[in-house]
Amino acid sequence: MQGLCLENGRLTHKSNIPEPECRAGEARIRISLAGICSTDLEMVKGYVPDFQGVLGHEFVGIVDAVADSSDEHWLGQRVVGSINLGCGSCAVCLSDGPEHCPNRTVLGIHDKNGVFADYATLPVSNLLLVPDNVPDETAVFTEPLAAALRIREQVRIQPTARTAVVGPGRLGLLTGLVLSLAGTDVTMLGRRPASLELPAQLGLNTGLAADFADDSFDFVVEATGNGAGFAQALRLVRPLGTLILKSTYAGQVNIDLTKLVVDEINVVGSRCGPFAPALRLLARGELDPRPLIVGEYALRDGLAAFERAAQPGVRKILLRP
Amino acid sequence: MQGLCLENGRLTHKSNIPEPECRAGEARIRISLAGICSTDLEMVKGYVPDFQGVLGHEFVGIVDAVADSSDEHWLGQRVVGSINLGCGSCAVCLSDGPEHCPNRTVLGIHDKNGVFADYATLPVSNLLLVPDNVPDETAVFTEPLAAALRIREQVRIQPTARTAVVGPGRLGLLTGLVLSLAGTDVTMLGRRPASLELPAQLGLNTGLAADFADDSFDFVVEATGNGAGFAQALRLVRPLGTLILKSTYAGQVNIDLTKLVVDEINVVGSRCGPFAPALRLLARGELDPRPLIVGEYALRDGLAAFERAAQPGVRKILLRP
Repeated sequence: MQGLCLENGRLTHKSNIPEPECRAGEARIRISLAGICSTDLEMVKGYVPDFQGVLGHEFVGIVDAVADSSDEHWLGQRVVGSINLGCGSCAVCLSDGPEHCPNRTVLGIHDKNGVFADYATLPVSNLLLVPDNVPDETAVFTEPLAAALRIREQVRIQPTARTAVVGPGRLGLLTGLVLSLAGTDVTMLGRRPASLELPAQLGLNTGLAADFADDSFDFVVEATGNGAGFAQALRLVRPLGTLILKSTYAGQVNIDLTKLVVDEINVVGSRCGPFAPALRLLARGELDPRPLIVGEYALRDGLAAFERAAQPGVRKILLRP
Repeated sequence: MQGLCLENGRLTHKSNIPEPECRAGEARIRISLAGICSTDLEMVKGYVPDFQGVLGHEFVGIVDAVADSSDEHWLGQRVVGSINLGCGSCAVCLSDGPEHCPNRTVLGIHDKNGVFADYATLPVSNLLLVPDNVPDETAVFTEPLAAALRIREQVRIQPTARTAVVGPGRLGLLTGLVLSLAGTDVTMLGRRPASLELPAQLGLNTGLAADFADDSFDFVVEATGNGAGFAQALRLVRPLGTLILKSTYAGQVNIDLTKLVVDEINVVGSRCGPFAPALRLLARGELDPRPLIVGEYALRDGLAAFERAAQPGVRKILLRP
């Protein structure tokens, strides 16, 4: 089969990858559509240096094989799937789930081939059926939408909280839309006016981060994907406020911790979230992520797709095998 | 009167400071005993560059004057006092109290003369009566003990949580003692075996930080007072764990934020705490801070006292006017 592989830090399109076989408990999925996210771009830059294999973790597809006969009802079903595979037996898996299992693999990120390919495999326990009224172009956003919803699992945000999302990119925009659903007044903050056009079209408040005074917000989400974003977000959060960190990237950041201590800021790292609520939002039509799509590429043109996705201001680029 | 003054970054003992006068709502306190804390040492190093005046914020003393006749019942009373003075009328004061008032002054730290002097003033609303069974040498610890208790206001710590305090210094030790009170298993971590002798004598578990594997603790308090402490504390906290920051110091720290996001760590800045619960602990004898005292100096020997307090491994140095 074909696939986009990261090998020794270099991304290449290959046509001779062996088709994956289902292991016990697994399903094989024929990928219908996949999305490029910032983590994929960071991985090409070396964010997970030891990863070798097929990239990609945002997808929707059709189950075309299962290992166990008891899972045959999955055959032909349209699915999305959560991306962390825990060992299932350690204390972390049993108490907190697979997301923090020390022995986990992660689809397209950590020791497990991803979805920028014709086929991928996942345990059936990771799969969720996509409701018929959710088109592929919407369902492919389930994973990043779940990541945005993770914030609601971690902290309580008052609907009256002055809330900002720093970084109006792929994940930042979904986060702004999710936080707005509860009636919260959300301002999307960027560095350039052009980056604020789409958020404004989607009905969100917008502004240039530099135009806001220190301590302007009760609640700030950092989703810039770069180190400078942390200092900006910390500057904007008020004393006793909360700062959610959503960016993952390689590299160190120089931080003045004094404000964090003196102003008693609560900083919360935030990663993967719950798929079922994300699918419910999409099925009910409470949130439509499709305006984020700026282009769709055939998988064989994946390198061009990655180049495009890395351009400033480009949101979601999709890949179709 | 005499006092220890910070002027243009230099600490001097002066004998010709005008005695402070009570403003409306204030009491004047004759200082009986005061304590040097790490913040005082950091201030001499330039942590609050614009502060000019008498240093010091940990004290016990006797009220010897009040501005308002309605406050005369305070005269002759032995008191401690909280150190943040809010404007009392802004939204922050009305909702969160004076600790985060943007217009606040802070005793001996921010635009308000402190307690390393014969006399100091505070609003009577900041004062707390010291129970008769609490000696001065114990009462003088009320402020740092309150700061340790602040953690319990901010986060819930399961009694079963594997808990560590990195930095077995003045505040670190009080924090370890406070967290132990709920039956929690607390390990005091240091860099040198000598720093662990007192914590061990006080019945706390001890260890060298470097001897513990990554992710060893559910809950870690960073109380080292230096930048290297953050990285060590972050290394030791497990995925989904909590890291409390107690250190205030001047300077930037270089941080790898990846672990914070991927492991979804909760980082909580923590500063001043509640005085009444701290006094209750001391009055009930549930916690005796006096083993931390390593020396008492006359206020006129304050410079020598500061030198001693800055030595590695030295905990509480007291000053008696």
